[in-house]
Amino acid sequence: MMRMDPQELLSLCKRRGFLWPAYDIYGAVAGLYDYGPLGAALKSNIENHWRSLYVLGEGFQEISCPIVAPEPVFKASGHVDAFSDMYVECTNCGETYRADHLATDLHPNPASLSESELGRLLKEKGVKCSECKGELTEPKRFNLMFKTSIGAGKGKTAYLRPETAQGMFVNFAQVYRYGRERLPVGAVQLGRSFRNEISPRQGLIRLREFNMMEAELFVHPEDKSWPRFKDVRGEILPLVPNEGEPRDLSLADAVSKGVIRNEVLAYFMWLTWKFAVDVGLDSKRLRFRQHLKTEMAHYASDCWDLEAEIGYGWTEIVGVADRGSYDVQAHINHSGAELVAFERFEEPREVEMDVVRPNFGALGPLFKGKAKQVAEALSKLDIGTVRGKDKVTVDVGGEKHVVPASCFDVVRKKEKVSGRKLVPHVIEPSYGLDRILFSVLDHAYSKKEDDYIVLRLKALAAPIKVGVFPLMPRDGLDTIATEIFDSLTMRGYTAYYDDSGSIGRRYARMDEVGTPCCITVDYDTKTDGAVTVRDRDSTEQVRIKMESVAEAVAAIVSGAPFSSLKGMK
Amino acid sequence: MMRMDPQELLSLCKRRGFLWPAYDIYGAVAGLYDYGPLGAALKSNIENHWRSLYVLGEGFQEISCPIVAPEPVFKASGHVDAFSDMYVECTNCGETYRADHLATDLHPNPASLSESELGRLLKEKGVKCSECKGELTEPKRFNLMFKTSIGAGKGKTAYLRPETAQGMFVNFAQVYRYGRERLPVGAVQLGRSFRNEISPRQGLIRLREFNMMEAELFVHPEDKSWPRFKDVRGEILPLVPNEGEPRDLSLADAVSKGVIRNEVLAYFMWLTWKFAVDVGLDSKRLRFRQHLKTEMAHYASDCWDLEAEIGYGWTEIVGVADRGSYDVQAHINHSGAELVAFERFEEPREVEMDVVRPNFGALGPLFKGKAKQVAEALSKLDIGTVRGKDKVTVDVGGEKHVVPASCFDVVRKKEKVSGRKLVPHVIEPSYGLDRILFSVLDHAYSKKEDDYIVLRLKALAAPIKVGVFPLMPRDGLDTIATEIFDSLTMRGYTAYYDDSGSIGRRYARMDEVGTPCCITVDYDTKTDGAVTVRDRDSTEQVRIKMESVAEAVAAIVSGAPFSSLKGMK
Repeated sequence: MMRMDPQELLSLCKRRGFLWPAYDIYGAVAGLYDYGPLGAALKSNIENHWRSLYVLGEGFQEISCPIVAPEPVFKASGHVDAFSDMYVECTNCGETYRADHLATDLHPNPASLSESELGRLLKEKGVKCSECKGELTEPKRFNLMFKTSIGAGKGKTAYLRPETAQGMFVNFAQVYRYGRERLPVGAVQLGRSFRNEISPRQGLIRLREFNMMEAELFVHPEDKSWPRFKDVRGEILPLVPNEGEPRDLSLADAVSKGVIRNEVLAYFMWLTWKFAVDVGLDSKRLRFRQHLKTEMAHYASDCWDLEAEIGYGWTEIVGVADRGSYDVQAHINHSGAELVAFERFEEPREVEMDVVRPNFGALGPLFKGKAKQVAEALSKLDIGTVRGKDKVTVDVGGEKHVVPASCFDVVRKKEKVSGRKLVPHVIEPSYGLDRILFSVLDHAYSKKEDDYIVLRLKALAAPIKVGVFPLMPRDGLDTIATEIFDSLTMRGYTAYYDDSGSIGRRYARMDEVGTPCCITVDYDTKTDGAVTVRDRDSTEQVRIKMESVAEAVAAIVSGAPFSSLKGMK
Repeated sequence: MMRMDPQELLSLCKRRGFLWPAYDIYGAVAGLYDYGPLGAALKSNIENHWRSLYVLGEGFQEISCPIVAPEPVFKASGHVDAFSDMYVECTNCGETYRADHLATDLHPNPASLSESELGRLLKEKGVKCSECKGELTEPKRFNLMFKTSIGAGKGKTAYLRPETAQGMFVNFAQVYRYGRERLPVGAVQLGRSFRNEISPRQGLIRLREFNMMEAELFVHPEDKSWPRFKDVRGEILPLVPNEGEPRDLSLADAVSKGVIRNEVLAYFMWLTWKFAVDVGLDSKRLRFRQHLKTEMAHYASDCWDLEAEIGYGWTEIVGVADRGSYDVQAHINHSGAELVAFERFEEPREVEMDVVRPNFGALGPLFKGKAKQVAEALSKLDIGTVRGKDKVTVDVGGEKHVVPASCFDVVRKKEKVSGRKLVPHVIEPSYGLDRILFSVLDHAYSKKEDDYIVLRLKALAAPIKVGVFPLMPRDGLDTIATEIFDSLTMRGYTAYYDDSGSIGRRYARMDEVGTPCCITVDYDTKTDGAVTVRDRDSTEQVRIKMESVAEAVAAIVSGAPFSSLKGMK
């Protein structure tokens, strides 16, 4: 299959109201796009289908957090320290470049070089500004978060979130409580995220402001089974593992052979696959690629990207990762909050543990009237901070007391405990909505010999569900068509009324934006009460009674084949 | 009616998963909230109803623009220069205050004072830091946009949008073209906006990051009639005009008496009213207040706020304004783009106009071979830049030529023209979604004598549509209840499964979050195949067959009274 030219698709998108370069009247800004009416509707349709799978289908809680977040959140997540790229600037014209992009032909992995190594390489090879041939500066690191400040005066340093995920991690305790304190429990968030790219390109693939749909499933760290896995064991996915050959494997085989790490990860890979095919991606141009070992985050135990083959080549559109306890633990460490689940044992268990036993014979003379309070404070200390010490400090009502080791013993004791605290592990399916949308358009785009364009969008995704045309804009045909149009929009179907130009041109306009069917009111309608319904993909036509129009559109929208309309009266 | 304590409502919201203070584990940030699962669902329900009215009902185009925008956009809109408040800082503890808020009891309109006047007043009255009694600095102006920068190196100054409106104004040409070059044409946008408040307070009423739903209707500057106005002429709204007494007026009277400026404004006030009542606001606690003449923007010809009476008092939740050509004209002036509509006359009209007539006798000797091109350039000049000048400069293929007045005449000429360019006027209904959501909760909140809380949300708004309970979590009742739950969620209804605690406690949990009905599966269900449906507001119960459950829930969700279930089998 020929890959299509992305510029051709972008040009259709601009012409027909899917996408507009943002702030075009002020010269536009690279990496920022507007969704026009058709793009915004397509985006909503994809979002709503995703919600139906995750929120209604799997019971995830949808939450919605602010975009602006104070610095400590991203200190904890690692973004303040590590979310950066290197750039160089032209000393003559001021143009900036991703430094590693300038060296793609000069080194196998330029992003792995240090600033000075990369600077040396660029200098050696005589790389200059491609705009004006000016000299370039030394590479510098640039943090990719948009920075801002909250409040007047000095203000608080803040950033625009680079992903929606952190909002769910910092809220784990709330999500867990709302989920009635059971694992697994999942949250999702849909919304804008930001990445201050040094030199954005490739249309919707690398944006400075983009839309994500992320799910965070919090699971028991020792239990990555998944009840519904049994329903999808036999499903086959095309896998590109980081060891061995690409192959099609059933999920059951993939898990039992250890290609996919665990059941829950495999299940959400399948759900991702189902979602992608539902919204209209071509299964023959999709694959799951496992992250290379060098590419995988050190804390992740497994990670797969769903890739779509589009005009730009194989492109990551979703990532599904087992992130272990990394994210939640990072926020525990930085905030001190207790982001844990409590596992209640079926039976209380007897465990042996070390405890501090106060020695009153020694405490009494030393602390007099406060001996009892000091003893209490001692028994509450974390055993790890006491063991082997020759003295410890305790706090009694705000007063510090140094207690010598002679005043206590560390003893082993058996105790019944009813459960234990667990830091949950996170399974994260993370969807790049703009990339998905662009891939859907890419896979739907088809051009016939005479340059006639048809977007073969699934009805579920199509921004307009039905075109409504009076053959002529008069003689009462317009009145009938308007009634049909109104009755369809009242039922919630996005319809498009068009009374200008030949019917052929009107079909062409609808085909080009992916409208699955069109209804024409003609002169016969006035006598036989029937209208013509025309199918986008086959261009077949059937005649149905006006009373059945809503039912016919409902059938098309629900994905029924056009042939099913033939039985209608 | 007693106003409710907003703290009590906020406390319910936090406890039950409507709202959480954002970044709580890092000490939270004033003016930033998370929507928990119930809040996010309520928000989606309100948004979707708004969309159904504006996009499906009135044919507005929904578009979606970036949040980050380059400086020129807000230079043009006036936000860079004028969107600011004054603040003072404590020289001791660093706390910041809205300077005018500190003077509310000291002056009738402290925001109208200059920095130095306000500073003098605060000093005279001895106002100190309320936290530490420290001295305060002189008031300074603080721009309320969050500032950031796009790209590496120096970068481009940019801001987070303070409203979604500008995205629609800068795209007027695109919106007009997509609407097939006809006026009126409307666009809407739903999304986040930002206001870097100096000292946010009042929960969801004054946020630093908030959600808007804005519509911009572009109309013919001389035609503010509205075809559908005739359908709502008789509707009566409670108006508080800026002259005379508050009164209830029909829309027809309000327009004919000049209380409301024009039909289209009146129509969208009515649509706003309908929306508010549809989502559950109490019509007895709503009113339209006209902006005072001192309060109205100089360019606006009329502006009305829909206010809701809530715990904080009468609070603006929507603004409906006739903004004239101000916004579009500002972007024409700053960008040079031609943001105009073209009005085609029914018949070409003969108009008299001044035109430049080149004088070839003088041009020839002066410009030789280029005389013809100079003449062409002359005739394209804007007449206003030529009239009365003793020389003008023209551009021929990039080369500038100074042309003395002897080379041309300005003559009056009759010409047939087919139409004219118009800068559209803007009617703007602008909805504060968070305030609407909070007002919906306020108006729905009710507490019985025994502190039993019921949120009387409309079914359309309710985050959970139905509770599903097995009387006991065993004996097959759980299996039946799970089947009912699954069949409802599969149909798209948000349901809540609850099998713990007494049925009374489960009802109470659902009443407190506004779930309109609950279904209980009991031991009789196994023999008679029927379940109990219980109404939230009346606490009435009816027994219906399991097969009718989906139909019953559909009826409740569509707003049918509970009594309509009694006829079901």
